[in-house]
Amino acid sequence: VARAGEFDLIARYFAPLAAGAPGAFGLRDDAAAIEVAPGRRLVATADALVAGVHFMVGDAPGDIAAKMLRVNLSDLAAMGAEPRAYLMTLALPESVDDDWLAAFASELSAEQNRFGITLIGGDTVATSGPLTLSVTALGEAETVLRRDGARAGDTVFASGTIGDAALGLALLNDPSAAWTRALAAGDADHLIARYRRPEPRLRLGQRLIGLAGAAIDVSDGLVADLGHICEVSRLGARLRAADAPLSPAARRALQADPSLRNTVLAGGDDYELLFTAPPDKTEAVATLAADIALALTPIGDIVAGEGVTVLDETGAPIHLNQTGYRHF
Amino acid sequence: VARAGEFDLIARYFAPLAAGAPGAFGLRDDAAAIEVAPGRRLVATADALVAGVHFMVGDAPGDIAAKMLRVNLSDLAAMGAEPRAYLMTLALPESVDDDWLAAFASELSAEQNRFGITLIGGDTVATSGPLTLSVTALGEAETVLRRDGARAGDTVFASGTIGDAALGLALLNDPSAAWTRALAAGDADHLIARYRRPEPRLRLGQRLIGLAGAAIDVSDGLVADLGHICEVSRLGARLRAADAPLSPAARRALQADPSLRNTVLAGGDDYELLFTAPPDKTEAVATLAADIALALTPIGDIVAGEGVTVLDETGAPIHLNQTGYRHF
Repeated sequence: VARAGEFDLIARYFAPLAAGAPGAFGLRDDAAAIEVAPGRRLVATADALVAGVHFMVGDAPGDIAAKMLRVNLSDLAAMGAEPRAYLMTLALPESVDDDWLAAFASELSAEQNRFGITLIGGDTVATSGPLTLSVTALGEAETVLRRDGARAGDTVFASGTIGDAALGLALLNDPSAAWTRALAAGDADHLIARYRRPEPRLRLGQRLIGLAGAAIDVSDGLVADLGHICEVSRLGARLRAADAPLSPAARRALQADPSLRNTVLAGGDDYELLFTAPPDKTEAVATLAADIALALTPIGDIVAGEGVTVLDETGAPIHLNQTGYRHF
Repeated sequence: VARAGEFDLIARYFAPLAAGAPGAFGLRDDAAAIEVAPGRRLVATADALVAGVHFMVGDAPGDIAAKMLRVNLSDLAAMGAEPRAYLMTLALPESVDDDWLAAFASELSAEQNRFGITLIGGDTVATSGPLTLSVTALGEAETVLRRDGARAGDTVFASGTIGDAALGLALLNDPSAAWTRALAAGDADHLIARYRRPEPRLRLGQRLIGLAGAAIDVSDGLVADLGHICEVSRLGARLRAADAPLSPAARRALQADPSLRNTVLAGGDDYELLFTAPPDKTEAVATLAADIALALTPIGDIVAGEGVTVLDETGAPIHLNQTGYRHF
């Protein structure tokens, strides 16, 4: 057989990932127990990833493992929570063999160390369909950042740079597109790495508590995710397209093909944080950016009304072809 | 279109299920927040179910919803935890339409009310494969029941009746098997209901804290699950086959076809609790059984050594053909 039975598979690949959490009982019990520090709340989020939809069937198992965890940790970051542990269910097609599982588990181990989290439970089942992963990430926080805390007059900030992941995906889908010839050495790797290994902005999220009104991570796309804040805050927003923070690679891509602006503003998967703060916090935001060595760029404003208006450098509204990732 | 987009689908079917948990933020935020009472621990468990593996493709959506939740609640029961909330990810094939989702959500709502739990998060994605469900159930407890607390000399108890679910499944797979002619009116419905709607023994689990040494829920099969207790407790067990508590329906089935004893002892899916207690707790166990109106039957003993020895009514060892559900 190319693959161990369920119990062997758990013992071999997954139980070692639970070694850091005594309450996981070595994945040999019915459930796991977690202590939540007094005065703190548990924060929980879940995501599912399907081969052929959320990642490519031939993607390296390590890349899949890393992205699966980081996407969930990004949700905790957007709540300002400190990550603690995760549960994972795997529906495995026959094509997934021991080599695949070993590489997958090895990267999970590296990612756990990087982010200070531990596997505490899950389930492994067989499927006749594509590889399907589901993760529930657990964290804790005293208070959480919400999406619905925006106020009219707030400034909208984005962390890091926007659009890299969408350009990385465009590059993977069409490696010989004309605009790729304008890239400098290392640009393509940078864009693809941003798509494959997004950086959950955990430190930023925790520091935004008490500072940000509303926060969300950029997963569906800059415009769509700002739209989510607007919708639940029952307000509108103006987004200055020219102020969206771009990496040097993204700047070169846009110079070569200005139509990529749509990809940058509407594409998702950056997992940067988008947040609002009242004008009197502008200085505190700048101090925080310097503290954590991460750009926090003002890109727009919250206004009365509804929906996101995207403005070009002259202040004229732009119509985007597609404002965000469609889940179906 | 036969199905709403992801956001509509969440708003229509799933957000109402989160109404009871303020920390779920109407499923409109990045994650949910849960307060854990001081001195209590959070207990977490996850299970995945795949159409064609864990349930039949044509099963009623309400039956799938109920079984999905109950299987997870049973894991909380086996830890002695009180259920609080759950997160759910759904990978939906195109064949799942709005009618299916409406029936599924409606049963989730009824089950939530029955068990006092609330949906607090999740994800809904498309798949080219079979319907795949993953649930993480969260509960809380002061201390938890473990699998590794058995001691030599302990008595092994089983709650309720054993084997009904496996016989129900056998009946669904072969409705005209010879033994089914020996069933009385209502027996077939009883056996199938036990397979489709197992009763998580939550009250029992919570009351076993301080009483039971080790506990597990019977999901893989009576012998296999007792084997799990033995393995992690580093002990053996003797199981008296004739003492396994049977429903009247199961008794009639075994009378008609004694070879079904294997199905009863090795089949899974009963979701009764199997637990050990020292001899000086026998009376307390009997009092508890009367208190919660649930049979708690002594069926064997924990002994030095390893593995489960199944004994017939004369005390001679029996060899079973298959000792538990194979996950692959």
